[in-house]
Amino acid sequence: MSEISINHDEVDIVIGALQLDLTSFMEEWKPVFSLFHLIIVQDPDLKGKLEIPAGFNYDLYTKSDIDGVVGLSSNAISFSGYSCRYFGYLMSHKKYIIAIDDDCIPAKDSAGNFVDAVAQHITNLSTPATPFFFNTLYDPFCKGTDFVRGYPFSLRSGVDCGLSCGLWLNLADLDAPTQALKPELRNTRYVDAVLTVPSRTMMPVSGINIAFNRELVGPALLPAFRLAKEGNLRWETVEDIWTGMCVKVVCDHLRLGVKSGLPYVWRKERGNAIESLKKEWEGVKLMEDIVPFFQSLRLSTSAATAEDCVSEIAAVVKEKLAPTNPVFARAAENMLEWVKLWKRVRTQ
Amino acid sequence: MSEISINHDEVDIVIGALQLDLTSFMEEWKPVFSLFHLIIVQDPDLKGKLEIPAGFNYDLYTKSDIDGVVGLSSNAISFSGYSCRYFGYLMSHKKYIIAIDDDCIPAKDSAGNFVDAVAQHITNLSTPATPFFFNTLYDPFCKGTDFVRGYPFSLRSGVDCGLSCGLWLNLADLDAPTQALKPELRNTRYVDAVLTVPSRTMMPVSGINIAFNRELVGPALLPAFRLAKEGNLRWETVEDIWTGMCVKVVCDHLRLGVKSGLPYVWRKERGNAIESLKKEWEGVKLMEDIVPFFQSLRLSTSAATAEDCVSEIAAVVKEKLAPTNPVFARAAENMLEWVKLWKRVRTQ
Repeated sequence: MSEISINHDEVDIVIGALQLDLTSFMEEWKPVFSLFHLIIVQDPDLKGKLEIPAGFNYDLYTKSDIDGVVGLSSNAISFSGYSCRYFGYLMSHKKYIIAIDDDCIPAKDSAGNFVDAVAQHITNLSTPATPFFFNTLYDPFCKGTDFVRGYPFSLRSGVDCGLSCGLWLNLADLDAPTQALKPELRNTRYVDAVLTVPSRTMMPVSGINIAFNRELVGPALLPAFRLAKEGNLRWETVEDIWTGMCVKVVCDHLRLGVKSGLPYVWRKERGNAIESLKKEWEGVKLMEDIVPFFQSLRLSTSAATAEDCVSEIAAVVKEKLAPTNPVFARAAENMLEWVKLWKRVRTQ
Repeated sequence: MSEISINHDEVDIVIGALQLDLTSFMEEWKPVFSLFHLIIVQDPDLKGKLEIPAGFNYDLYTKSDIDGVVGLSSNAISFSGYSCRYFGYLMSHKKYIIAIDDDCIPAKDSAGNFVDAVAQHITNLSTPATPFFFNTLYDPFCKGTDFVRGYPFSLRSGVDCGLSCGLWLNLADLDAPTQALKPELRNTRYVDAVLTVPSRTMMPVSGINIAFNRELVGPALLPAFRLAKEGNLRWETVEDIWTGMCVKVVCDHLRLGVKSGLPYVWRKERGNAIESLKKEWEGVKLMEDIVPFFQSLRLSTSAATAEDCVSEIAAVVKEKLAPTNPVFARAAENMLEWVKLWKRVRTQ
């Protein structure tokens, strides 16, 4: 409930570069990003040399770095497109990781002040979460608020927060059909709140603007789910939705919290929803199977770490979902491969 | 997502009068309250004649009306203090009921505009709720928002909303210990959002500023739980917290929604938290038993109406909680008595 002091050495900001010229993106974020170590991962499908302005402390990873670590076998995990960021997660050794899409710039709050998304994410992650009982005045650990009458005292100490999901002003994270139906719809509502998403409640985690405690849940943030005709616009992928359900199940099982709400980022226009609709919209259909699966998923008591949980989820995906669609079989393989990779990188 | 048109004949505003002079309270609300039928119930412990300004359409109920309906037996439900409002719920025949404490006046939003709490509650109740999957952009049926990418299309039609829980600016609904520890704490954060509290998530429902669909859940809004040394300040009672958990369990069982958030009301100062602390703070201790009880409560498939659900909850309270404390035995009796009363009043 007091101001959080940030240890800059505990944070990596991971940027997946899906465009060659990062200049305007990074200049917009300079007041914040210049204070932290950055991990920039170039989409391996993006040919050419990134333009990165001066004044930042960063490590850059490209296709050759990825191939060097992951190998070139046909079974290797793909880090194409938005998934390139996961390679950055793999390379990080910091406690907290923050990831923001490269088409987002800092938002302004209702009073017109610049939103420091990194500070807000760190606040979310370093204050307790309250997943076992809903607080009607939102996150009781935000400044100026508290637990309301009737909130059990035994639950007020809360639990560690594993994941912080930020939101978007201007272009919201809608799917292609919604965006196509309502081309004029923009999100202008600045909701000044953070809340813990209750335990056992599933949600659509977007990878656009998130942060997590790598030590607690790192292995659960993984590149596993890839549509057959996946595009390079957010509304043409559900990789982050799959990952989000995995990490939510892991957090629920390990009694960790997931927060949603602040900070906002400002999303710029990109792409054409009508064009996206011409592709087969496989992701929308698959959700109807994925959501009930994750809602009913319960892990065994022997799963004590995020790695254990991911391995167990992969086994159930293979058993229950894989027979219905090869996309799930591939996801299960990727999850197992990812856990191996995560351990190998850390023991080298 | 469009403006809601309100049928004024479908709404009763129920006011529990805990003070004799309602003049300033009602004048503050006049632009809204004068458009609706009011049910005013005078706290039966409050002696004297209410002062009610002209210009309102209301029915007034006093101790003699209550005694006439409920009877004078020692087993009769008590409508003392805040519980007097429940007599108003009993007398209403409207679809929607709205109840606002008499120490609350209209709030202003971030732009300084008068908040029409009644219109917002009716909007919450008459648009669908989404309890089975969390939408990160809050209530998708609010104007200007929608479902985010990854939200299953099969869940987008939502379900009927049973209960709408509004919030409080200035004096928040804290318990006596919190208010005593932080006497300067005031809620100044206007969070411009409504959300559906997920299914199977318990919450502390406050009776200060609520609305409900009487036809769907009316019998679950009941006066049942009374502390031995209950006071006449909000932080000295948990009657609404108990009721809130009952109605949440009922909504979850009947696949109805509970929304929380907008509208705000402005709560004026009343009482002295330190004085309240001198009473035995039984309510805080009882929460530790009540919450796990309601969290694990599952009703049988034969419970098809709110009346059925309340009767079934009462039976389990009697079996599981009553042996630990007579306050629970009394609550179970009150709940059964209430269901009888509810049916009797409606068949007369």
